[in-house]
Amino acid sequence: MGIVLGPNRYGKAETRVVRVVRDGQRHELRDLNVSVSLSGDLDATHLAGDNAGVLPTDTQKNTVYAFAKEHGIDQPEDFALRLARHFVASQPTIHRARVHIEQHSWQRLGPHSFQRDGGETRTTTVTVDTAGEWVVSGLAGLVLLNSTDSEFWGYAKDGYTTLPETRDRILATAVDARWRFAAPTDWADSYPGVRAALVAAFVQTYSLSLQQTLYAMGRRVLEERPEVVEVRLALPNKHHLLVDLAPFGLDNPNEVFVAADRPYGLIEGTVLRSDAPSYDGAF
Amino acid sequence: MGIVLGPNRYGKAETRVVRVVRDGQRHELRDLNVSVSLSGDLDATHLAGDNAGVLPTDTQKNTVYAFAKEHGIDQPEDFALRLARHFVASQPTIHRARVHIEQHSWQRLGPHSFQRDGGETRTTTVTVDTAGEWVVSGLAGLVLLNSTDSEFWGYAKDGYTTLPETRDRILATAVDARWRFAAPTDWADSYPGVRAALVAAFVQTYSLSLQQTLYAMGRRVLEERPEVVEVRLALPNKHHLLVDLAPFGLDNPNEVFVAADRPYGLIEGTVLRSDAPSYDGAF
Amino acid sequence: MGIVLGPNRYGKAETRVVRVVRDGQRHELRDLNVSVSLSGDLDATHLAGDNAGVLPTDTQKNTVYAFAKEHGIDQPEDFALRLARHFVASQPTIHRARVHIEQHSWQRLGPHSFQRDGGETRTTTVTVDTAGEWVVSGLAGLVLLNSTDSEFWGYAKDGYTTLPETRDRILATAVDARWRFAAPTDWADSYPGVRAALVAAFVQTYSLSLQQTLYAMGRRVLEERPEVVEVRLALPNKHHLLVDLAPFGLDNPNEVFVAADRPYGLIEGTVLRSDAPSYDGAF
Amino acid sequence: MGIVLGPNRYGKAETRVVRVVRDGQRHELRDLNVSVSLSGDLDATHLAGDNAGVLPTDTQKNTVYAFAKEHGIDQPEDFALRLARHFVASQPTIHRARVHIEQHSWQRLGPHSFQRDGGETRTTTVTVDTAGEWVVSGLAGLVLLNSTDSEFWGYAKDGYTTLPETRDRILATAVDARWRFAAPTDWADSYPGVRAALVAAFVQTYSLSLQQTLYAMGRRVLEERPEVVEVRLALPNKHHLLVDLAPFGLDNPNEVFVAADRPYGLIEGTVLRSDAPSYDGAF
Repeated sequence: MGIVLGPNRYGKAETRVVRVVRDGQRHELRDLNVSVSLSGDLDATHLAGDNAGVLPTDTQKNTVYAFAKEHGIDQPEDFALRLARHFVASQPTIHRARVHIEQHSWQRLGPHSFQRDGGETRTTTVTVDTAGEWVVSGLAGLVLLNSTDSEFWGYAKDGYTTLPETRDRILATAVDARWRFAAPTDWADSYPGVRAALVAAFVQTYSLSLQQTLYAMGRRVLEERPEVVEVRLALPNKHHLLVDLAPFGLDNPNEVFVAADRPYGLIEGTVLRSDAPSYDGAF
Repeated sequence: MGIVLGPNRYGKAETRVVRVVRDGQRHELRDLNVSVSLSGDLDATHLAGDNAGVLPTDTQKNTVYAFAKEHGIDQPEDFALRLARHFVASQPTIHRARVHIEQHSWQRLGPHSFQRDGGETRTTTVTVDTAGEWVVSGLAGLVLLNSTDSEFWGYAKDGYTTLPETRDRILATAVDARWRFAAPTDWADSYPGVRAALVAAFVQTYSLSLQQTLYAMGRRVLEERPEVVEVRLALPNKHHLLVDLAPFGLDNPNEVFVAADRPYGLIEGTVLRSDAPSYDGAF
Repeated sequence: MGIVLGPNRYGKAETRVVRVVRDGQRHELRDLNVSVSLSGDLDATHLAGDNAGVLPTDTQKNTVYAFAKEHGIDQPEDFALRLARHFVASQPTIHRARVHIEQHSWQRLGPHSFQRDGGETRTTTVTVDTAGEWVVSGLAGLVLLNSTDSEFWGYAKDGYTTLPETRDRILATAVDARWRFAAPTDWADSYPGVRAALVAAFVQTYSLSLQQTLYAMGRRVLEERPEVVEVRLALPNKHHLLVDLAPFGLDNPNEVFVAADRPYGLIEGTVLRSDAPSYDGAF
Repeated sequence: MGIVLGPNRYGKAETRVVRVVRDGQRHELRDLNVSVSLSGDLDATHLAGDNAGVLPTDTQKNTVYAFAKEHGIDQPEDFALRLARHFVASQPTIHRARVHIEQHSWQRLGPHSFQRDGGETRTTTVTVDTAGEWVVSGLAGLVLLNSTDSEFWGYAKDGYTTLPETRDRILATAVDARWRFAAPTDWADSYPGVRAALVAAFVQTYSLSLQQTLYAMGRRVLEERPEVVEVRLALPNKHHLLVDLAPFGLDNPNEVFVAADRPYGLIEGTVLRSDAPSYDGAF
């Protein structure tokens, strides 16, 4: 019986790069948070502190900035692929690179003036290894709410159940979605298309459970976007609790709610094409 | 020489209330975070634990919910005034009430579907006491960036100065603004007007310092909005540091930046009408 | 009627400096977050973008690091005073400097090994101007809880009151305390003394209201620490709500609680010596 | 080619429960954040909104509180196992339950007075399904620093490498550790033992890379704690950057550092017994 080193990886997390494209007075802006993670023949540094195979995380950060200048930043998927391929191709000890990007978006206010969009971020996670390349794109922080057309009843009950059934409630969630591609695609076209499908399904689904809404959202993406083979969703149920106003002689027909922080329901699920090749490593 | 109780206040902070107005299938949504703070004859509870003059903070919370039902929520200033007046008028021991509201905004996606706007919040702070009523409105979390038309040079230098002068830099900030009214006004009209003035001044000012931009923003509000008598701004300088790409044989003509977290410059200032009555207690 | 510039200040916020003292193998560690704020003759930069009187915030940051080397960091009050005096003395346009420091503490694990203490920070705010020097020290993030010896009853009731009176509840708070000194003192001795007085008063006070506990905490500091003339406390009431277990056939004699996030009570108060000179500007 | 539902689960996240044990005047306190996640025959709710197999997340929350009363809370592993077994045993549709607990610790100040410990939390993740039971315990938020005995040199260099080699640097990290057990053990004894092994290895390892320290920490746990079969560590490299004081005529022999926020290195690795049965699902 021995003690061994198992799976491991390392890299520079959260390199913040802002890239301006200056075409005369009219500028374009890209604002990314880039995290790199490399794996390969790294036993020597763990077991003996021999760093000959370790490309410093500081170098990884420098590469992000240099590539932003040399190649520009258009779609985050392309930028991530370029970085990941570079690390695998140029470092003999690195066999696998994972690049995760969060893109903050900005609205244009003028030729070189911008306002940052709030909570929502576009994401991508790219994995490149000797067996292939995988791209998962996503979004986080998109908060959606339907103030009606949501029910919850007919559920299992036991001795600890006190929740009253309801035929009308608020349904709200902060969408955390990631979707896997079968092959490279037109990233600039795909992202708004997938996002629109997610939003449309949330808005248009008359919901009997957040699970039903989750499945509808994933299914809608797969129906509308042939380039996507798998969708993974994590949907917190941002509870809006009806306030009991009876002590004050008032009724409350779904008008006044507490927006609760904790606890919250959390619904997680995957919707995929039945012939999609499985690859958990992409996520 | 004795020990005495000085200024004090108490209240319920961060009551989260969501109010739905249901007019058939088309709904309206208000989403507030309400903090109440009361002061008056409260020595007895501090000195002797005698609570006869203490309206519980739980009751304050209940009042927020009941008022949301009874009176609805339209403009946050009106809702805050109603609450503040209620506490002073109905509790003999309470002589001063301060109600602070943060309003989260939602975009409409459908008749009863909404998407939460991200980081920006509209705020109001209302103070009611026996001497009068004061209203301060504001906004927080509005992140603005100019990718050029900003310089910084000609500053004082001492033995600890290493910053190079620049004739072209990114200027970015997260606007924290509060403005005081001389009298009640049309709150629904005023808020977007003040916000537009702040944004326009940021975008249109060719800036030699963030201080200059701050003053321009405050001045613009006072020029365009007669109902406002004083503007207070706190503008963090969200530094975008030019990356030195020379080690990689690359120039960097204001194209690639690090978006830095800490430290940050912080510029705070007040712009007011010369005849504005002073009242710090309103803020 | 004109538009004028009112009070204003600027500076570098949140400069993070870690200072190691290396005395052979045994090291000492200081970990500070330093914020500087300067005011004076700064109209020109606001009104005309003329920065001749503006010492860059970058220079302020450099000064923090250089002083950490040149003078070391022992007590945060001394370090803050040294910085504040320097800015006022060396810059003709700067008439007032405010330096705020948060000190993170570390426990010793070995001669040069340390473990960071969690949430609690020691603070100081030093103000130096042509009229004098003021020192306010403080602490934040000290979370205290009594699981009994707390009651709340006999309070004012109105039509919105539903809270049941209680003769036994949990009392918990996150202490945010600041205290003002009449004159320089032995900072290293004073801090643990004041902290101990605050904790002892919280633990030993049989509480009929959090207000009573607040006053007891402030009074205890003034009784035990002659160097302190004023104490300001902000105590959130971190509600622990008794869970109703009756639906499950269980009683709950103050054994099972929900630790709630929002809303929370917030009790703020000042306790001071009756002969303390008033000076709000110190806080 | 069809669209199908893949892996899914749901539950109540972040139920905050505080349990007081009152043995006369001397009280004990447990403070947990409990997240439950259930999976099984849940297709009907996703595909058709049929909730007959769905035990509400509200019921899961109630169960946490009721069990806290009925069975008390001693070791978090036992409490999590009891909850997880209950859901699988009592709900025909639920075949797998995962319970994750974060335990906040409090220091005793008196018979019924406590001070909350800061950033560090003890964690456990328990999985119960028809195939067996798995327990993973852990800790998060333990911030450690060595102010010397750390080097980094001899690493791979490419055209983007600018980092200077160093024979003396600060090494600091926030330990995120999880360890898997082969079988139930004495949880109360095991936790402080594993924690002590992690800390001792960090303190005593003369480090040539954070990877080497990571491996030493994992190995030390396995050497000292026979009940543990696998350790997974995620160690952010909390960079402390040496400040260049040369512009001010000062040297800086590892005395003054910037504590940087972003970016940061992130080293992740697994150390395990060579005969440990593999089971990723436990984490």
